Amino acid sequence: MCTLALTPGCHYCSVPLVCCLNIYGSLVYCFGMSSLSLPPAEAERCAGQFLAKCYELGLVMNEAVGSGTTHVSTTLQPLTISRAEFDELCHVQSLWNEAVDNTARNFSFLRDALRETAASDDGFTGKLVDILVKVYLGTKPYQKLMLGIFRTDYMRHEDDNGVGLSEASRWRNVEINTISCSFAGLSPLVTKFHEHVGVHLHVWRKANGIVGEKDGSTVSKASGCDGGLVLERSTSGRVVPGAIADAVHAWTKQQKFNLLRESYSQLQACTGCGNDSPQGKLDASPIVLVVVQENERNMADQYALLLKVLEEHHIHFIFRTLQELHMSMKLHYINPNQPPLAVVDGKYPVAVAYFRSTYVPGDLPTDAAWATRLDLERSSAIKCPSIPHHLLTFKKMQQLFCDMDRVLVPIAFRGDSDKARRLKRHFVPQYSLNPCEVG
Amino acid sequence: MCTLALTPGCHYCSVPLVCCLNIYGSLVYCFGMSSLSLPPAEAERCAGQFLAKCYELGLVMNEAVGSGTTHVSTTLQPLTISRAEFDELCHVQSLWNEAVDNTARNFSFLRDALRETAASDDGFTGKLVDILVKVYLGTKPYQKLMLGIFRTDYMRHEDDNGVGLSEASRWRNVEINTISCSFAGLSPLVTKFHEHVGVHLHVWRKANGIVGEKDGSTVSKASGCDGGLVLERSTSGRVVPGAIADAVHAWTKQQKFNLLRESYSQLQACTGCGNDSPQGKLDASPIVLVVVQENERNMADQYALLLKVLEEHHIHFIFRTLQELHMSMKLHYINPNQPPLAVVDGKYPVAVAYFRSTYVPGDLPTDAAWATRLDLERSSAIKCPSIPHHLLTFKKMQQLFCDMDRVLVPIAFRGDSDKARRLKRHFVPQYSLNPCEVG
Repeated sequence: MCTLALTPGCHYCSVPLVCCLNIYGSLVYCFGMSSLSLPPAEAERCAGQFLAKCYELGLVMNEAVGSGTTHVSTTLQPLTISRAEFDELCHVQSLWNEAVDNTARNFSFLRDALRETAASDDGFTGKLVDILVKVYLGTKPYQKLMLGIFRTDYMRHEDDNGVGLSEASRWRNVEINTISCSFAGLSPLVTKFHEHVGVHLHVWRKANGIVGEKDGSTVSKASGCDGGLVLERSTSGRVVPGAIADAVHAWTKQQKFNLLRESYSQLQACTGCGNDSPQGKLDASPIVLVVVQENERNMADQYALLLKVLEEHHIHFIFRTLQELHMSMKLHYINPNQPPLAVVDGKYPVAVAYFRSTYVPGDLPTDAAWATRLDLERSSAIKCPSIPHHLLTFKKMQQLFCDMDRVLVPIAFRGDSDKARRLKRHFVPQYSLNPCEVG
Repeated sequence: MCTLALTPGCHYCSVPLVCCLNIYGSLVYCFGMSSLSLPPAEAERCAGQFLAKCYELGLVMNEAVGSGTTHVSTTLQPLTISRAEFDELCHVQSLWNEAVDNTARNFSFLRDALRETAASDDGFTGKLVDILVKVYLGTKPYQKLMLGIFRTDYMRHEDDNGVGLSEASRWRNVEINTISCSFAGLSPLVTKFHEHVGVHLHVWRKANGIVGEKDGSTVSKASGCDGGLVLERSTSGRVVPGAIADAVHAWTKQQKFNLLRESYSQLQACTGCGNDSPQGKLDASPIVLVVVQENERNMADQYALLLKVLEEHHIHFIFRTLQELHMSMKLHYINPNQPPLAVVDGKYPVAVAYFRSTYVPGDLPTDAAWATRLDLERSSAIKCPSIPHHLLTFKKMQQLFCDMDRVLVPIAFRGDSDKARRLKRHFVPQYSLNPCEVG
């Protein structure tokens, strides 16, 4: 669903304001304050101003310790990339989406491909595969709609002489993320931050009588661009909330929600189970359930998306941990031909379950947490991601994609070898060290 | 310069998210979370969301202890006020500006009026009056241009039965602020915050099947208004930076800056004093000097204004404490008919000195600080505020304004009794307890 975007933060470096440039989180270049060619005393003053700009923009995250807030680590200047390369990488994203979705929906292939991994990691991968088998390879109806918000991370390949290749194919994928993809909310703000740095450098140089000198900055004109360069703003902050809202509308239509609500009331009246809803009725509109971690640091990024779901699409959202849901969520089997309706707090029907949690073992510490995760997958809610989509985030699947003849063409692209070839240009070959495994 | 605005924060109450509504900082109403008619558990969850919204908007300030950041205390909902009352209060602001400016420029009246106060507070008021006398009642040229950014605080008067009067005159002034007026930068964000709360309540009620019920909220429609009400956004975040930029342009023109720069170079070459500027030349463009406190908490508000001065008007600004300026600022007497040019760091010519400090005795702890303050007043920089404007912030001056015949008509309005009468409607009478004093 995402278009290509420059994201703040970096997995490889977390020095405040002296950080790395990322495309979808991958390390490309290091730019520190020194790249701005400022005297040390001036650079120190700039750091305070740039910090203030981060706060003005809402480019913040919770501190690791305590209840405080700090700025998000970000680059000071953008990376230049040719329009052709950029457009090609944006276009390639739809191939990634297709490959991930096709493979995820081949449930038996997915189960078989992950059999060895599941056996060697029965506490996490194994349990996720269990849910896959129970929900998607059983006999009960399951929700066929899935919402995918994916982020692919690239590094730029250079030849032995350190010279970059000239084509889009030099961008090599190092990671596919299919769950809890971060920074879709904050990425557009990084462009605004870069604009500010550009204007600041321009005005500072003018105020210091340094105009027109070579200075090493990518963006130095007050307009935010230099020599025909354009600051490209990520659309992720608008597109992702739009996709979540679209999923809510698709669910409402698919479930014939008004009829479903009536059936729910009748069922509650019959069974006398309506005691958790004062009137035994479902007055609420369909909502987005955001499944979150305890002590989440990246709250601003999550809220940047969800506040737009609320403000621009007028859809209610609730944040809940798995632990809270274990107490407050119930599945209601209303129609035998449909998966059960998930209702939270006895009143909120869940249209979309958006996971910003459950991607590391620590998020599922108890059997109760796993039971709740299974309930969510069984429910009629559209999952973002579903367990099948989630499983594609495992490195094992990316290694299998490297097998052109047995996986990429027949499974990921259902026989379309042209699409497979176009995507494969961006692969860094990955190999299994276990000869017994598929691939 | 300011138009009327709802401001965050409150001098009288600082409970986070359960605070008071202000017009120019004055207490009007208390609105807590309880005013939103939400169940306690829901209210608790809302607090987290509203906090996130504050961070998204940049509605923050530094914490009192440590280096952390927190949200600005703000009301949850706006106050309703009739269009006629609002427009009248905006209009009255220009009368305040006129009264303050006329009185401030009557230097000998100002000196005499504050004589007793100065004598009884020789450590602060006395020293400010000393600067008034030295700079404005001496024989040397002084900068006649002054930049005023004023904020007037009102409280709404109600009769003995607790019923409000129906006219604009029920708004009674309790404070004139002429120095370091806070929250001009953040005020427009409060409206965005109120919009968010309005949309949230609307969507929350819809999601809970509560539509059209009486709920006590002023703003409940998704559009941010209800029953013909309009959320009025303060223009202060745009108008104040614009006024600062206008002052820089006025100074550049008044000082014939290009010629001044040449004279400066010649003077430096003649006297051999150019050792603090590598080339003995003034390469820099005129700048805004922001005189700040150590450990300022309200940084976001200051930056909200100054970042716009930079980004929209392409004018460089520097933040300096008086202590820093004592070491780094020099006055250059270039033309005997003009006040001296203030240059900071041997390169920045100061067009505007904007004070977000020096309004409490603690800001001027040493003789060196007072000497630097005097130097700034002597300089050609346009002060915001000048010492005469600053002195109008003293309660003594507001008490004198209550004397219609001897002060308000002849001094503040130079004989225009009609204007004096219109302004006097908003006075809460103030009296001196000292029969010897003027007024």
